[in-house]
Amino acid sequence: MLKLISAFVFLIVASSNAFAFSQSSGLSVSEYTLDNGTRVVVIPDRRAPVVTHMIWYKVGSADDPVGKSGIAHFLEHLLFKGTKTVPQGVFSSAVSEIGGQENAFTSSDYTAYYQKVSPSALKLMMTYEADRMRNVILSDEVVYPERDVILEERSGRVDSSPGGILSEFTQAALFVHHPYGVPVIGWEHEIAKLEREDILAFYEKWYQPWNATVVVAGDVEPEDVLALAKETYGKVVASQPEVKRERIRDPQPVVAKELRYADERVTNPVWRRAFLAPSYNRAEGNEGEALDLLAAILGESVTSRIYKDVVLEKEMATSAGSFYQGTALDSGYFGLYATPRGDTTIDDLETAMEQVIDTLLEDGVSQEELDRARKTFLKSAIYSRDSQVTLARIFGTVLTVGGKVEDVTNWAEKLGNVTVEEVNAVAKKYLIRNQAVTSYLLPKKG
Amino acid sequence: MLKLISAFVFLIVASSNAFAFSQSSGLSVSEYTLDNGTRVVVIPDRRAPVVTHMIWYKVGSADDPVGKSGIAHFLEHLLFKGTKTVPQGVFSSAVSEIGGQENAFTSSDYTAYYQKVSPSALKLMMTYEADRMRNVILSDEVVYPERDVILEERSGRVDSSPGGILSEFTQAALFVHHPYGVPVIGWEHEIAKLEREDILAFYEKWYQPWNATVVVAGDVEPEDVLALAKETYGKVVASQPEVKRERIRDPQPVVAKELRYADERVTNPVWRRAFLAPSYNRAEGNEGEALDLLAAILGESVTSRIYKDVVLEKEMATSAGSFYQGTALDSGYFGLYATPRGDTTIDDLETAMEQVIDTLLEDGVSQEELDRARKTFLKSAIYSRDSQVTLARIFGTVLTVGGKVEDVTNWAEKLGNVTVEEVNAVAKKYLIRNQAVTSYLLPKKG
Repeated sequence: MLKLISAFVFLIVASSNAFAFSQSSGLSVSEYTLDNGTRVVVIPDRRAPVVTHMIWYKVGSADDPVGKSGIAHFLEHLLFKGTKTVPQGVFSSAVSEIGGQENAFTSSDYTAYYQKVSPSALKLMMTYEADRMRNVILSDEVVYPERDVILEERSGRVDSSPGGILSEFTQAALFVHHPYGVPVIGWEHEIAKLEREDILAFYEKWYQPWNATVVVAGDVEPEDVLALAKETYGKVVASQPEVKRERIRDPQPVVAKELRYADERVTNPVWRRAFLAPSYNRAEGNEGEALDLLAAILGESVTSRIYKDVVLEKEMATSAGSFYQGTALDSGYFGLYATPRGDTTIDDLETAMEQVIDTLLEDGVSQEELDRARKTFLKSAIYSRDSQVTLARIFGTVLTVGGKVEDVTNWAEKLGNVTVEEVNAVAKKYLIRNQAVTSYLLPKKG
Repeated sequence: MLKLISAFVFLIVASSNAFAFSQSSGLSVSEYTLDNGTRVVVIPDRRAPVVTHMIWYKVGSADDPVGKSGIAHFLEHLLFKGTKTVPQGVFSSAVSEIGGQENAFTSSDYTAYYQKVSPSALKLMMTYEADRMRNVILSDEVVYPERDVILEERSGRVDSSPGGILSEFTQAALFVHHPYGVPVIGWEHEIAKLEREDILAFYEKWYQPWNATVVVAGDVEPEDVLALAKETYGKVVASQPEVKRERIRDPQPVVAKELRYADERVTNPVWRRAFLAPSYNRAEGNEGEALDLLAAILGESVTSRIYKDVVLEKEMATSAGSFYQGTALDSGYFGLYATPRGDTTIDDLETAMEQVIDTLLEDGVSQEELDRARKTFLKSAIYSRDSQVTLARIFGTVLTVGGKVEDVTNWAEKLGNVTVEEVNAVAKKYLIRNQAVTSYLLPKKG
């Protein structure tokens, strides 16, 4: 019923599709704002008689109160527990009875819920979704058993995964004090102490019409969607005035950090390195697009530098690459990763990875390479654009991390304008080894 | 006028003197609580016609609001700026005119102010100190110029010191989210944004009679001190009710962390390793005392294991040792450090240091070694007990980090009871390499 987004996976999906989307000429996005502040975005997609209905709240785990991590995600669970007028299970049954799909997800910056159904069911979905914006029952009977469910979810997701454990501490090392350093699901000892009152206060603070963005993609008319939205979401009355998200800033990184975690369950070691880099929302000029293209050139496909060098030529790694996490309200980051092959040591692999980066920093990228990477980036985007859910998700994400509809629709054009000099500039500016966080997931002898 | 305490230095002073003090048989400490909640502790010390008067507030940098680091220390500066009835400079002049000394210091857990004067001036000191508990003038004219002074202080203390820079990030790595990971002086970008209102709110919240402990050591009669305290501090009326200090807990450490900082200004590399370990306040049973003795056995003197091995025998280091920071309201830590000598690499020195620890973990300590370390510990304590200020400071520290007067007076006895098994147990329990934070301060070629 719910899913925590891997920032890495999502970045790729998001970038690709935003690009793909903007290639679909003739597709026009409609935007409305209801009187109570709820935003409505409609993306026509008439390939099939299907509609994807999403609601996005501008609140995520980075808005959890200090010392009370896990509330945003906890609340996502609780939104499936029924309201005063719609008992638990009714909403989900309405979706599954017509062969629809539903899901929800929490990230650092947003929480979202969606259903993919036939257009005739859209009104019902909006009715139910508008209902649970303000009317969820948060009784002790609902909250405390669910807390145990979440603790088990955490145990299964993180504690049983050596990579998950290391990843949490890596994130905490990258973001010294900023809440991006706190796991989305929350720290175990803090989840265990969450009280009904904490959840309720969070719900009251953030689940309000002024904080909601409704995204509808599918075989629908924008005017019809607006009319339905007015009838449903438009009737929700805010119980509290608008609040702004405020997060602390971290000190400038100046120290190189290495994290090592050895675990008997590790069979394949993993080397990772992360550099703080601005998100699209925080970037100056073309820096976001340039970082996306830098990641493509370095390591997002089998023709990129890292893969060709350490996987194909040197045969030192079974997998290796790079990525840019640029979809964030606050700071993003740039990542490198590699898994050694055969007898290759993780230290030798690290040296090889560093050589790839050093070469790029010294010699820069060529125009031809940039153009090729841009094309590959586009091609992989086209393959993934088939998903209506992904399409809707891109808009929802961008709109909840500080962006506008045009940031999605103009994205490919801006990507097309990025120059060799701009790619080289962001590489030099952000791939600073002495400020990076490197993590080593290692096997441990029993 | 003010001084940030190095936790390391202070621990040694504190431990030694508490030990020394308790050896002074016949010394009896008097304790009182005034009606408004102010505690008064009197320690007779008749060696000279001198009295040390201190006030300790149970508030420190770990109580700075999240994102507003530096307030506790900022306020310490502002307490020297004058009150409604005592203009700036009057208090300090009163001290210096009679040849007295004064100082103030802020740590994570407390803020303290003191004067060392002739007993006849005690009443005046108490009058002035009681006055500035509630009456400091915090106008824009006072606050903002001082903010620049503090930014300069930070620049001189931290940014101009490679070791200072690395130390801040090491502390942040050791304490993942707990405010001990935030510098006492504050992060530069947060200090720069502190406003008068932030300081004022902090002053109103914490500078209250119920949060103050007055420590007087010297050639005085306890009853006389109590009478003076009633006349001065006793008249201060709280403007807000008592609040408790609440700090978040960190997740269990499971990942080894390494921090590297290279700087052109570094001439002597430094290797350090820190392990989280309970403070006296958080320790079970004798663990605090056992950790103190473990530090003594390992490396607090020229006869301890580390010094004998890596400095004297192997000649790999110019200095090396260990320490236990056990004076904290929340978690303490155990530290190792070494500076390579001549051509010794920092990696080789690390290996040598690890061998010393591994040997201790494998073979344990002997009864003879424990007894000898305990004696050395005591001896160095006796040398440092001459300072009346230090004596008073030990009581102030212990009383503001969760301890009682008896924790000081019984300390030597408890130290005497620590067994070989207890020392070996804390070593095994806390010196876990895979959970430690290791920092490398390195030279950098220009």
